[in-house]
Amino acid sequence: MINPNIPAHPGMPVSDIDTPALVVELDTFEKNIRTMADFCKQKNIFLRPHAKTHKSVDIAKQQIDHGAVGICCQKVSEAEVFVNGGISDVFVTNEIVGPKKISRLVSLAERARVSVCVDNLVNIVNLAQAARQSGTILNVFLEVDIGGGRCGVQPGNMVLELAQAIHDSPQLNFQGLQVYYGKAQHIREFAQRKDALSQSLDKVTQTLRLLEKSGFTCPIVSGAGTGSYRFEAASGIYTELQCGSYIFMDADYGSVHGEHGSLLESYANSLFILTGIMSKSSSGMAVCDAGLKAHSIDSGLPMLRDRPSVSYRNASDEHGVLLDSDDSLSPGDKVYLVPGHCDPTVNLHDWYVGVRNGFVESLWPVSARGMIF
Amino acid sequence: MINPNIPAHPGMPVSDIDTPALVVELDTFEKNIRTMADFCKQKNIFLRPHAKTHKSVDIAKQQIDHGAVGICCQKVSEAEVFVNGGISDVFVTNEIVGPKKISRLVSLAERARVSVCVDNLVNIVNLAQAARQSGTILNVFLEVDIGGGRCGVQPGNMVLELAQAIHDSPQLNFQGLQVYYGKAQHIREFAQRKDALSQSLDKVTQTLRLLEKSGFTCPIVSGAGTGSYRFEAASGIYTELQCGSYIFMDADYGSVHGEHGSLLESYANSLFILTGIMSKSSSGMAVCDAGLKAHSIDSGLPMLRDRPSVSYRNASDEHGVLLDSDDSLSPGDKVYLVPGHCDPTVNLHDWYVGVRNGFVESLWPVSARGMIF
Repeated sequence: MINPNIPAHPGMPVSDIDTPALVVELDTFEKNIRTMADFCKQKNIFLRPHAKTHKSVDIAKQQIDHGAVGICCQKVSEAEVFVNGGISDVFVTNEIVGPKKISRLVSLAERARVSVCVDNLVNIVNLAQAARQSGTILNVFLEVDIGGGRCGVQPGNMVLELAQAIHDSPQLNFQGLQVYYGKAQHIREFAQRKDALSQSLDKVTQTLRLLEKSGFTCPIVSGAGTGSYRFEAASGIYTELQCGSYIFMDADYGSVHGEHGSLLESYANSLFILTGIMSKSSSGMAVCDAGLKAHSIDSGLPMLRDRPSVSYRNASDEHGVLLDSDDSLSPGDKVYLVPGHCDPTVNLHDWYVGVRNGFVESLWPVSARGMIF
Repeated sequence: MINPNIPAHPGMPVSDIDTPALVVELDTFEKNIRTMADFCKQKNIFLRPHAKTHKSVDIAKQQIDHGAVGICCQKVSEAEVFVNGGISDVFVTNEIVGPKKISRLVSLAERARVSVCVDNLVNIVNLAQAARQSGTILNVFLEVDIGGGRCGVQPGNMVLELAQAIHDSPQLNFQGLQVYYGKAQHIREFAQRKDALSQSLDKVTQTLRLLEKSGFTCPIVSGAGTGSYRFEAASGIYTELQCGSYIFMDADYGSVHGEHGSLLESYANSLFILTGIMSKSSSGMAVCDAGLKAHSIDSGLPMLRDRPSVSYRNASDEHGVLLDSDDSLSPGDKVYLVPGHCDPTVNLHDWYVGVRNGFVESLWPVSARGMIF
């Protein structure tokens, strides 16, 4: 029996997919994967894609098949899903605090190559102690705040103090720097984004010099995202890119300008919400079945695909109100939304429906959905 | 073995709950349930709480134990969870469109008392046909748009046409009107909210008169939410209230004024996100582990509980940046957030952690989490 909450099955025409569903256009998705893989090969830089975007073991494996050296994720519970799914090199690009989470992280390091970020002395001591107790080695990155104003030690002498503490812990293997500037990814104008990233690169350079002067070498300098990776790759400083969104893109990234036009010239939208029209009771509008529980509006409303006369006006929990200026929609019709923000949208769904040439080809579970611990 | 992704177990002190976790303060929660139940008893009006808020069979059962006549939900897949969980009277307060969903709805009606909304002639025909084929009776409410600008037929002659079509279908049992004005729930000022609801009540009254003149009686007039139910209850027209948020409340409802002060005077916040501090690298700020995947910011940012010097400044996917003006927070500390909007926040979690007097008392699954079909 097919689980009634799986929105489709392979071989089905796309018109039969139940709504609202998370749909991946496989041709575009695979081209996005290849484009980034080719870029990294050409620039001789490692790619460690961020799996917080997709939360899918199936997708992580495809990225690794195309040359990725491993994956990033943000939570220990996510890392467990990927290691259990067969991914052998996972970098938790985040601070892991508290005995329960640290114990889970260390257990995982017994079974896979696991790395983690630190920005605090007490946390370093706690990680070292847990690793010693289990006889495990943890790979550790020092996270430095290069402009994001979130986690990460401020550039300066505290960096040396933390590097020394890592160095003094035989169970902690110092890998280098986590230097990620999330907010910069989404700066709309190319020149402004370039300027912000140039300032962040200066901080990375200064930090590397400071560490080198004190005898600490950084084998890996890891960071960057879809909105910025060309800058980091060109810097000659970064050795590893952590881009995530490039596989899917979203409406927000559609507004970010590249040097010569939209970022979508290199990476096209491959992720959509297929939504059904439920109600068409007034002229000029229609109501679809994808609201706040089917896509995230934190970075703005979704766009319609191939429907220039329709726009998404507002979202309530289970409804989306569409402006339908030429009254082209009727109940039962299905339309595709480009979500405003791909990562939190994916986390609302249990299945990806992979489609090609009008038919469903694959169903992938969102394996790490809801893994927030 | 305890599933590592259950954030707590009964008997544990609250300080040991893993973060980020969805926590219910049981004393307050139970008082909220009783307050609404007492109100409805006193006013002699039925309560059919909206389970889209909590998505929990455990909570639905408590509401029914306190006199609720059944529950509402928004999706067929949600209704299935509640019927499977033992709830025998479920009203899907939404239009159900498309053969797959209609077939599931009709199957459910063979096992429980199931009601659904309609606002479209073709949909009425489709529901009637499916019910006839399975030999089932479906209870049908005519949804009328009384100001929400979402689903529902516009008041006027189309109402009669649809009522006639329902009446002409032996498999459809006309129950009355679904008249819900979602947006009005959140109008901040009491006088403005009262005015908006007064206009919507006029539309309900006119619609009832129109139907009565043509010989249609409406045994049930159902609607209302936490921000408005006192108006509907006082109207003498509504027979059934659909409030959902009153059990939990949220930061958004905290800004909605009652006649003499905040709505929180009657119903207090019982739902929180317990979040851990991960990073404290700069003066005046700290970073917590509850971002967009742990609470929804569609209706605004969360508030801090019992931490007047701390505020939530911005959310990224897995992080929350807190302003910590007196540097009171350290990594490993835990603080409680009042989510901006309870319904989509609950849908991000798999478990409720029920707490009382500083200890974990119960763990309830978010049984209908992700049920979007």
